[in-house]
Amino acid sequence: MTERAADKRWIVGVDLGGTNIVVGLLPMEGGEVLGLHSLPTEPGRGAKFVVDRICQMVERSIAEVLEAQGGTRDDVAGVGIGSPGPLDRATGTVINTPNLGWRNFPLRDLISNALHLPATLDNDANCAGYGEWWLGAGRGTRSLVGLTLGTGIGGGIVLNGEIYHGCSDAAGEIGHMTIEANGRRCKCGNYGCLEQYASGPAIAQRAVEGIEAGAESLLTDLVHGRLEDITAATVYEATVQGDPYANEVMKDTAKFLGAGVASIINILNPQMVVIAGGVTRAGEHLFEPLRAEVRRRAFKSAQECCRIVSAELPGTAGVVGAAAVFKRETYGHV
Amino acid sequence: MTERAADKRWIVGVDLGGTNIVVGLLPMEGGEVLGLHSLPTEPGRGAKFVVDRICQMVERSIAEVLEAQGGTRDDVAGVGIGSPGPLDRATGTVINTPNLGWRNFPLRDLISNALHLPATLDNDANCAGYGEWWLGAGRGTRSLVGLTLGTGIGGGIVLNGEIYHGCSDAAGEIGHMTIEANGRRCKCGNYGCLEQYASGPAIAQRAVEGIEAGAESLLTDLVHGRLEDITAATVYEATVQGDPYANEVMKDTAKFLGAGVASIINILNPQMVVIAGGVTRAGEHLFEPLRAEVRRRAFKSAQECCRIVSAELPGTAGVVGAAAVFKRETYGHV
Repeated sequence: MTERAADKRWIVGVDLGGTNIVVGLLPMEGGEVLGLHSLPTEPGRGAKFVVDRICQMVERSIAEVLEAQGGTRDDVAGVGIGSPGPLDRATGTVINTPNLGWRNFPLRDLISNALHLPATLDNDANCAGYGEWWLGAGRGTRSLVGLTLGTGIGGGIVLNGEIYHGCSDAAGEIGHMTIEANGRRCKCGNYGCLEQYASGPAIAQRAVEGIEAGAESLLTDLVHGRLEDITAATVYEATVQGDPYANEVMKDTAKFLGAGVASIINILNPQMVVIAGGVTRAGEHLFEPLRAEVRRRAFKSAQECCRIVSAELPGTAGVVGAAAVFKRETYGHV
Repeated sequence: MTERAADKRWIVGVDLGGTNIVVGLLPMEGGEVLGLHSLPTEPGRGAKFVVDRICQMVERSIAEVLEAQGGTRDDVAGVGIGSPGPLDRATGTVINTPNLGWRNFPLRDLISNALHLPATLDNDANCAGYGEWWLGAGRGTRSLVGLTLGTGIGGGIVLNGEIYHGCSDAAGEIGHMTIEANGRRCKCGNYGCLEQYASGPAIAQRAVEGIEAGAESLLTDLVHGRLEDITAATVYEATVQGDPYANEVMKDTAKFLGAGVASIINILNPQMVVIAGGVTRAGEHLFEPLRAEVRRRAFKSAQECCRIVSAELPGTAGVVGAAAVFKRETYGHV
């Protein structure tokens, strides 16, 4: 890869998820996301619909930003796309995404051709981690591991300022690290994956199981007795309202997450672990017991150089990181 | 790091362990280890004794090799040292090794000054992995993870042809990845570490526990009823002799190990996992169920590009890898 000057003014970032598409423009040198838009993905309407929607959103964002800031379309360098994987980055192909129902889908080139702009493709969780590294919590670090606690647990590894992809673009699946060898069955086929204990649905499920077993909690009132309506957000809400049971659930979450984070620290010895996702709104109710659990578990020499922090770009890390990938692949630096 | 020609003919490799010191010479371009010697470490006799013994062994190996191959001491480029950690590579200091009883011990410079040769220091498990990468099972790969199943489980990560050290030289502690969040307490302070299930002593302990609980096994005869004499080697021996119970213990080992290896594959997506240590003499009795467990657990796209193989340099990987580290740090390439 050659290092050359990044001579254009803007990069488009696209964060494609199973639920929403988020699009925005980043100044080449970094800064605020401009022309930020989000729309539902509606994957059920077909791949062509999704690609068309992405392209329309990109055109609208570009038009808005150029209108407000001046300049022409020539000032836009290209488009970085983050998508659920597994992917083949070399060909820009989505190999298989259950959430979107795609198989061997040439997403990058379809978007690039439709927009007449160069494009890059990387994994959504990688992009989220890279976004936090470029302009978020990880600014100035050389290495970090990003974890996004959502429907699943996404992971992104940044080493020496680059996304670590592994030998078949499959690295970083930290949510599918086994923390209980004979534990809960995971959708991925494995048993006892971290995701089964600390993702949003897993937190909700553990909360419900305890209440069904007799625990008294404000959670029951918050969902008017409909336990199936309990989500990780409800648990967070009850925790900050002082509910002891919800706090216990949050502490258990921190313990499971702490086992996973400690393993990551023992294996990768990163400078930072950045945690994103709705449940981080619980703040120190989550981070204090999480850090305590990591202290209990990880090697001193590894944990002492690792900060465990909340993400700073909620909602835009994926867009920022996708743009950073484009910049890195096009100019050889970020 | 500058890339320059490796103009000397030989590099000394030193593999310092809690039990034995192994020393040998490697041809600069790689090849057979010559002048190979092993002596007990005898750490109880003090640090000066150990350093003197290492230096005497190095002098003897150099003399032997030069005598047999011709040439002068000028043909020896320097000494690569592998030592238990944690270490500070920049200063060449052993920060703390319980097995040797050392703290903040400037091992590299003591050896370098005594021998009047430049020296490098790296972690013993890193060296073992790097040795397999340079001249062993991993020849020609770009990335591998090495696991040595011994008294503990050592790990070494090689990415893009370089040892991955992390931000404080503490990376690669794969034996201390948690595979049972509430599992067996480990000496490191953590719970459920892989090492507590698949190291040599852990294999022996699981075997003994089953026999004490009533299992019938050839193992009991092999140790003449003294169950405390059962080791991983005894379990291996009984397995190859067809003992069904020992085979069960080996299969359980493969399952625990498989959970750990699958996590490593999901996180690092390496081209190869190299397993070393006495228990690998069980051959396919270990590797067949291990590979099956990994297939059951790891992502398809990651496991398909990863070979799980036995180490090819038993006894010398540490020496080879320590020499490779010296070459890499001195000339910028291996």
